[in-house]
Amino acid sequence: MRDVAMVGAGMIRFGELFDQGIKDMLPATLAEALASVDKGMDRSEIEAAWFGQLQTADGFPSGILADSCGLLDIPITRVENQCATGNDAVRNAYHAIASGLVDVALVIGADKTRETSVSSTYWDWMGLSRDRAWDFPLGVIAPANFALHVRRYMHEFDVLPEHLAQVAVKNHRHALTNPNAHLRFEITVEQVLNAPRVVGPFGMLDCTPQSDGAAAVLLVSAERAADYTDAPVWVRGVGLGLDRVMHAHKPDMTTFPSTTKAAKRAFDMAGITPADISVAEVHDCFTGVELMNYEDLGFCGRGEAKKLIENGETTLDGRLPVNPSGGLKAKGHPPGATGVSQCVELFEQLRGQAHNQIAGARYGLAHNVGGPTAVAAVTILEAPRD
Amino acid sequence: MRDVAMVGAGMIRFGELFDQGIKDMLPATLAEALASVDKGMDRSEIEAAWFGQLQTADGFPSGILADSCGLLDIPITRVENQCATGNDAVRNAYHAIASGLVDVALVIGADKTRETSVSSTYWDWMGLSRDRAWDFPLGVIAPANFALHVRRYMHEFDVLPEHLAQVAVKNHRHALTNPNAHLRFEITVEQVLNAPRVVGPFGMLDCTPQSDGAAAVLLVSAERAADYTDAPVWVRGVGLGLDRVMHAHKPDMTTFPSTTKAAKRAFDMAGITPADISVAEVHDCFTGVELMNYEDLGFCGRGEAKKLIENGETTLDGRLPVNPSGGLKAKGHPPGATGVSQCVELFEQLRGQAHNQIAGARYGLAHNVGGPTAVAAVTILEAPRD
Repeated sequence: MRDVAMVGAGMIRFGELFDQGIKDMLPATLAEALASVDKGMDRSEIEAAWFGQLQTADGFPSGILADSCGLLDIPITRVENQCATGNDAVRNAYHAIASGLVDVALVIGADKTRETSVSSTYWDWMGLSRDRAWDFPLGVIAPANFALHVRRYMHEFDVLPEHLAQVAVKNHRHALTNPNAHLRFEITVEQVLNAPRVVGPFGMLDCTPQSDGAAAVLLVSAERAADYTDAPVWVRGVGLGLDRVMHAHKPDMTTFPSTTKAAKRAFDMAGITPADISVAEVHDCFTGVELMNYEDLGFCGRGEAKKLIENGETTLDGRLPVNPSGGLKAKGHPPGATGVSQCVELFEQLRGQAHNQIAGARYGLAHNVGGPTAVAAVTILEAPRD
Repeated sequence: MRDVAMVGAGMIRFGELFDQGIKDMLPATLAEALASVDKGMDRSEIEAAWFGQLQTADGFPSGILADSCGLLDIPITRVENQCATGNDAVRNAYHAIASGLVDVALVIGADKTRETSVSSTYWDWMGLSRDRAWDFPLGVIAPANFALHVRRYMHEFDVLPEHLAQVAVKNHRHALTNPNAHLRFEITVEQVLNAPRVVGPFGMLDCTPQSDGAAAVLLVSAERAADYTDAPVWVRGVGLGLDRVMHAHKPDMTTFPSTTKAAKRAFDMAGITPADISVAEVHDCFTGVELMNYEDLGFCGRGEAKKLIENGETTLDGRLPVNPSGGLKAKGHPPGATGVSQCVELFEQLRGQAHNQIAGARYGLAHNVGGPTAVAAVTILEAPRD
């Protein structure tokens, strides 16, 4: 099996992009990724592409990518796996390169959550990703389904609303320096606690915004990496995990088994442990979910996440900085793009070029848990070898 | 790169399955595929799955597959690529096995076209796969978009309505012996020509039915093939090709460049030529499209397809039998399942177990062209070695 290198990564600013269609966003994002390649890459060198998109925004996804980006002579696969979509697109491109069939691959993720072509309301859109028989009619969509998890988690481990609020404050602060973040303003614990309620325990400032956006990475075989850069980032682990869809079938609401399965696969593949991670981009669709993820990813023991956030261990100058990009919470969350955009942040971190640079970062981890908490993905990247 | 073997294949009967939800169809299909494995396979041996589905029928696709089939401990990717979806799911599973990361993979395709959860009408459903800016508002959806192609093709090459009708007659006759076919009745050229018009040049009997259905194949690494069968079918080529989405951007309506690109990739990979193919399952969503595909796949020269159908060369006892299953036209067409079900037919053909057995079949080809004719896939399989 061949090693796989990341030699380029780029994104457009996430936000309410009412002025851009998907056909505008995709070429702009590809251009950013190509421009990031140290020794240059032309789009004609791309041999295959994987496109992560939850919801078609302007017709046939693979075709729209081919058409709008001038990629008509390569195979393009659309992958959909709810919030794990971007990471899973990376995983499928990894397989193709590792197999020897492809040398240069594009992974691009994009979604417009502020407008979709199929469904006219957020409610319709949520219906695509839930159990239709019970959960959806009962209203167990995001944020309500995550609220059920986090409320139980808070009860079991004496986690306070203040702990949740600290996640939002941290991630907003991190986003201040990120030119591609949707929300670039600081907030306080008091503001989070006093924000209008969405669904207990979440107020408005506990929730990720709905964002439009796109992100892309360029993956190549180890043999070809030196053609594009002297500082390739290495893809070391691509883990994907599933879990039951219906919330009534989840015996322990305080953990996401999809994440533990995805993390085990990715760590086993990379041959490292959670203690080896220098920087992580972790799914924080709602504040409390970031805390639960610390535990499922093995960054601390059960019930210990609150200590990490209390002690500032996951801030920029802490032991394990989490979401230096601002996370979903402040960078934004166009689901098909999110996992790819985490890789963009880690690509820059591991090459010493990030807006919130973590000194000496060697291993970076990207994680998402999605849909009805029934799927999660973990991607592990390693810094260029000296 | 490792070779990839197909060791099991199964499907459920296509049709108007109003009595079955997707959660019923998936486990029944998996059971058929597992039961086809000569030396037996338990679902716990499956290490990863790829799920081809155009439209979510009952919520989150990957999760619904995991949940309904008891496949909670493996990664599952949903692939969507319009009518090329099933073949592209095979292609992505192929990469994972060829890379060495996966030894045993499930590829399953399923769709319910008679009911979808998102869109209430066929019109809505078509909107997911078209150019939204021009083609869709102008009504250029299937069957109208294929009618534009076929009408021009008939004009350029003096193809008569009778030639189209012969395709329908052939495929209906082939389906008579297929226990899994949606439509099992013979039709005549006169019936096809006199059927109610849908959109010229297509009458009702020139069109594939809208079917619900599911199909599955089990792929394993060459090293593991003997654990499951002494007669594995080999996956030799997996080609995918794209083309422009908008019909106004297609300079020659008499050919599908997506097919020629996909075919070239698959033939190059397999190291064979069209003349080596013993049996083919070819996209016949509308009769004339099967004729165009003969040419794009290299089975004959430009404008010569009518001779093949006139001379019966693509019937069961012809030089190159096409659609021995009955094709989309009579077997039915649940798009996510179609490409996989073609592989089910070829698996049986290449092992000498088919309902319409082609004697001595060595290479089988499966092909689909989809959506706004902007994507096509070709899968080439080889018979067990003696």
